Amino acid sequence: MLPSPVLVIGTGLIGGSLGLALGGAGVEVHVQDVSPGTTSLAVELGVGRVRRADDADPALVVVAAPPDVAAALVAQALEAHPEALVVDVASVKRVVLEDLRARAAAGELTADDLSRYLGTHPMAGREVSGVIAARADLFLGRPFVICPHEGTRRGAVARLRQIATELGSLPVVMEAARHDEAVARVSHAPQVLASLLATGLLEAEEQALELSGQGLRDTTRIAASDPRLWVEILGANARALLPVLGDMQERLAGVADALSTMQGDPDPAVGSRRELARLIADGNRGVARIPGKHGSGTDAFATVSVMVPDSPGELARLLTETGQIGVNLEDLHLEHSLGQRVGVAHIAVIPSHEDLLTRELARRGWSVLEG
Amino acid sequence: MLPSPVLVIGTGLIGGSLGLALGGAGVEVHVQDVSPGTTSLAVELGVGRVRRADDADPALVVVAAPPDVAAALVAQALEAHPEALVVDVASVKRVVLEDLRARAAAGELTADDLSRYLGTHPMAGREVSGVIAARADLFLGRPFVICPHEGTRRGAVARLRQIATELGSLPVVMEAARHDEAVARVSHAPQVLASLLATGLLEAEEQALELSGQGLRDTTRIAASDPRLWVEILGANARALLPVLGDMQERLAGVADALSTMQGDPDPAVGSRRELARLIADGNRGVARIPGKHGSGTDAFATVSVMVPDSPGELARLLTETGQIGVNLEDLHLEHSLGQRVGVAHIAVIPSHEDLLTRELARRGWSVLEG
Repeated sequence: MLPSPVLVIGTGLIGGSLGLALGGAGVEVHVQDVSPGTTSLAVELGVGRVRRADDADPALVVVAAPPDVAAALVAQALEAHPEALVVDVASVKRVVLEDLRARAAAGELTADDLSRYLGTHPMAGREVSGVIAARADLFLGRPFVICPHEGTRRGAVARLRQIATELGSLPVVMEAARHDEAVARVSHAPQVLASLLATGLLEAEEQALELSGQGLRDTTRIAASDPRLWVEILGANARALLPVLGDMQERLAGVADALSTMQGDPDPAVGSRRELARLIADGNRGVARIPGKHGSGTDAFATVSVMVPDSPGELARLLTETGQIGVNLEDLHLEHSLGQRVGVAHIAVIPSHEDLLTRELARRGWSVLEG
Repeated sequence: MLPSPVLVIGTGLIGGSLGLALGGAGVEVHVQDVSPGTTSLAVELGVGRVRRADDADPALVVVAAPPDVAAALVAQALEAHPEALVVDVASVKRVVLEDLRARAAAGELTADDLSRYLGTHPMAGREVSGVIAARADLFLGRPFVICPHEGTRRGAVARLRQIATELGSLPVVMEAARHDEAVARVSHAPQVLASLLATGLLEAEEQALELSGQGLRDTTRIAASDPRLWVEILGANARALLPVLGDMQERLAGVADALSTMQGDPDPAVGSRRELARLIADGNRGVARIPGKHGSGTDAFATVSVMVPDSPGELARLLTETGQIGVNLEDLHLEHSLGQRVGVAHIAVIPSHEDLLTRELARRGWSVLEG
């Protein structure tokens, strides 16, 4: 059984989405935000309701606030709700834990208090922010990091795993410091470099921007992120992020040196070419390490790909038959090249339906492509 | 009327796709590649046929070879086909033009020869390469840059505009040097930074990579590009690329300084925060300058978005009715949130069908969303 009631402190995108998801799973959700207007909006959007004096004490408190205020709010919650498990969801975990340890060392928190704290990082996010963008399915198929510390009480991690699974996300248990190193590489450095690239567009001529392609759009998409939030995230993870950026600075300097040499000399020493080739080739190997299908936003689903003749009604027939087979279509993408006489429909279904759909469509004469 | 026959020299992805597209438009296409195997494969794939002794001299020669060999092949073609317009399609334009000018200065080419040369850059590309990946629709909706020089003969630009339009691409006329500055910002710097980011993943722990999200996938997608090709492109555009990378190095150093300060001091001077906030905020403004809808791969089409009740057969019914209305569906993407009782079908159609489909679907009772 999930813990209930749950108190969500801070109803932005993440807190709001957690409230919606937990509420949908039958949990009683209470909400609280530093802004009364935001609290009202969250209530109106169905995230939860405001706590009343006669409400049971929360079994779980979720502090969904930026890293710079998370520790203070966690400490308050540990004190105010002495039976509750208290988690934060900040995108960096080490500063929050160290702040709480310092409070414990200063006698502000007891070891028992600290044993009820667990850092978490449900890794979802959109370029938009605020409770208005909250969605119950925000965490579906996304990693949900759980960071126990040396004093975490027994059973707390299992509790959080259960919640993460209920949200449809994938629990990953790792130490706070290792979490921070990981997100420095897979999230924070990409943010810095995407912003750098986008910044370079400020000086581009109008006509130059007409040459923008999908590569530029993809590499800069996250440059649309919220500055206020990212100043806190990057600042709070400076320790893990600096060495990662340092390596990139060094490598970039090497690339610039190689380019300088090649600019002056049309047939340069082989070292310059090798430097560039190594950058791209190492990049090839690095990108190949990313798990899952590239560009797919539906990792939680299995995809069945079917050839569809390019004649009227064929796609409709495919979908009608998919329904007859009893399989629910979660997403659909049609790949269709001009000049080709067939298209390919990629049908996303829950993984347990993949075999059934593949078998039944083949039996009805459809060409199902091998994964 | 399009020039015919056209001789395509170099049948990789770009040359092959141009051959397919021109052939589809009724042009007689001849192919030639330094590799006999590649030539045969191109012929087999329908790109064109090998020139015969009794063939008419080409009206247009397309040199589709990497920047380091493009100028030599253009010079040969200008000499071998004294009536033909000769274009190259290399991704950098200044080095090719300067090489040809040097040949003219050395008396290898006449001014008349040079007047028949025009640089072009059809801006398409996929992470895959080779003629096997060629597609007739590769250039659809993409910029097709045409770079005339001071000696380009009258009518040549108009000729190329016509070809670009026939391919479904968007002609953009600009000087070679300005083209190179533009692609340094919108294509080459993104390649370098994407490769840098991906290189950083080589040192990541296995578990860290489990935290990869869409942001990392998007920022590193182009890191899967071909090293051999990119060494040539980056090297050939060193002059335009170096100042762009130099600005980014400087800015990155500023960000690293700010992070160092914030690491040592939990409440640093306001300057450090401002440096980070400015990076992200400038990035916001930069990314907003990119024309077109972000993440859309179907810019050439109009999208009609329709609410679809989440009950069996509704999507099939929508597509059946779309066919009945007489509109061809070019692409389809279904947006479907868990817990929501409706989905949204985004139907891509050719722009001239947008109004018809919107009106007729509405008349049949579908909720069509406002663009």
